[in-house]
Amino acid sequence: MSSDRELRRADFAVVRSLPTRWSDEDTYGHVNNVVHYLMFDTAVNGWLIEATGTDIRSLPAVGLVVETSCRYYAELRFPQLVTAGIALEKLGGSSVVYRLALFGADESPAAVGRFVHVYVDRHSRRPVPVPPIVRMALAQLGDAPAE
Amino acid sequence: MSSDRELRRADFAVVRSLPTRWSDEDTYGHVNNVVHYLMFDTAVNGWLIEATGTDIRSLPAVGLVVETSCRYYAELRFPQLVTAGIALEKLGGSSVVYRLALFGADESPAAVGRFVHVYVDRHSRRPVPVPPIVRMALAQLGDAPAE
Amino acid sequence: MSSDRELRRADFAVVRSLPTRWSDEDTYGHVNNVVHYLMFDTAVNGWLIEATGTDIRSLPAVGLVVETSCRYYAELRFPQLVTAGIALEKLGGSSVVYRLALFGADESPAAVGRFVHVYVDRHSRRPVPVPPIVRMALAQLGDAPAE
Amino acid sequence: MSSDRELRRADFAVVRSLPTRWSDEDTYGHVNNVVHYLMFDTAVNGWLIEATGTDIRSLPAVGLVVETSCRYYAELRFPQLVTAGIALEKLGGSSVVYRLALFGADESPAAVGRFVHVYVDRHSRRPVPVPPIVRMALAQLGDAPAE
Repeated sequence: MSSDRELRRADFAVVRSLPTRWSDEDTYGHVNNVVHYLMFDTAVNGWLIEATGTDIRSLPAVGLVVETSCRYYAELRFPQLVTAGIALEKLGGSSVVYRLALFGADESPAAVGRFVHVYVDRHSRRPVPVPPIVRMALAQLGDAPAE
Repeated sequence: MSSDRELRRADFAVVRSLPTRWSDEDTYGHVNNVVHYLMFDTAVNGWLIEATGTDIRSLPAVGLVVETSCRYYAELRFPQLVTAGIALEKLGGSSVVYRLALFGADESPAAVGRFVHVYVDRHSRRPVPVPPIVRMALAQLGDAPAE
Repeated sequence: MSSDRELRRADFAVVRSLPTRWSDEDTYGHVNNVVHYLMFDTAVNGWLIEATGTDIRSLPAVGLVVETSCRYYAELRFPQLVTAGIALEKLGGSSVVYRLALFGADESPAAVGRFVHVYVDRHSRRPVPVPPIVRMALAQLGDAPAE
Repeated sequence: MSSDRELRRADFAVVRSLPTRWSDEDTYGHVNNVVHYLMFDTAVNGWLIEATGTDIRSLPAVGLVVETSCRYYAELRFPQLVTAGIALEKLGGSSVVYRLALFGADESPAAVGRFVHVYVDRHSRRPVPVPPIVRMALAQLGDAPAE
């Protein structure tokens, strides 16, 4: 991940605007590290709802989050408008790995992270294939990089 | 509500311990005003689950919050352990009005609030009677004060 | 407050757009009652920062929240864009009472609330006059209704 | 990290009890993935305040979070009481890497994560040595594993 800091908005097929909230700031007067994950969740799921044209919450398969991570490079502050970049890092049979970045005022990212969904049956909670409608939407993110 | 500040822990039939979290503090270095409502929600619903011995989320009738309010008298700080007092202010056909107080280190309350549940059918979202199992639990809160 | 439900976007001098977040929804599949207060806080403070052209967090006087309340009329869902209306209910020597409403897809409000700031000295936490720069901004909200 | 799932409460020098909150559950009826980071933040900072006997927020050096990650193995539900395990993964000149696990009802962890603090000067935000009082507290976590 040595090149994370060189990521730019243009490196992401999809970007989303995410406003900060007053209480996102913690006692240190900057956006708390947890908020970045609220933004990842909102960026990915909000985009999925739009790109599929479907309420993904009512599909028989739901995307459970099995792994997340974030590196923090710069502080964010309310009322900054944050831009989230979404890229496809890897598409598996049941899983989708997203690469995400959050941009504040600067050209370089304030934070870069990963977000991994595994699709499971809503009731049995056992892995199932990524739903076709999700797979079609993911095509808008371009190809995942070759490994 | 002129006597709110005179409320004491002993005025409440039920008290619950609610720890603060690091990020409850906002940029002003005190627990943000929104957190008090997280505590009200947690105190009432946590107590209902215990007192009814039932997962209230799976009942055919769910308690929707239709009104809340809070007056703030003193600042709270992480890692303070907060004590929530729960009292019954009014029991109606479909609705339950709780009086709540949050206590920090002092004898007098840091905040006092109201929390109103209306029970509705899970699917139609239309008002239904307060479920008998909830009504039985509420008896532990004593009588609501005469109006 | 019998006419709360008749409030419309046009009744507010200032309106602000506030996106929902994925995790705003609770186990009942709607925006949790606590989120409305996150929105009130964000609407008022975000507007104050813009309207004063000043980072209100660095003023010698800070606005502490001493009272809040909310009535809930309709459910909100992610990814709904919420419109917050801000009106001045009362301007006192040290305090400002805001009337707020949150609108979802409908013409009528999903929620209506009050939000009371008391200005205090940052260090002593004792009440001080509403800062002139805030008072000037409040003029944009029009006159508070005669009592 | 292949052995993460084999971690047990006894593998952690320090364990802390962290109650869930009602609104920790999201639309899928389980504790949202973001809450785990609220718990990491609360476990580490709450323990540091106790173990140092000092309000770490008022030290000249503050611990900024520069990296976090979490793997999710099992769902948590309100009102479950969560046990957080804290271990020292690495102690550097300016940085502290914590290994954390969250346990629900089971013997095996519901989630395992990392949490990295870099100490910076409160004003300049430039790295400084880990404060001696923090370093002394960290001794209670035992030695970091040899690399």
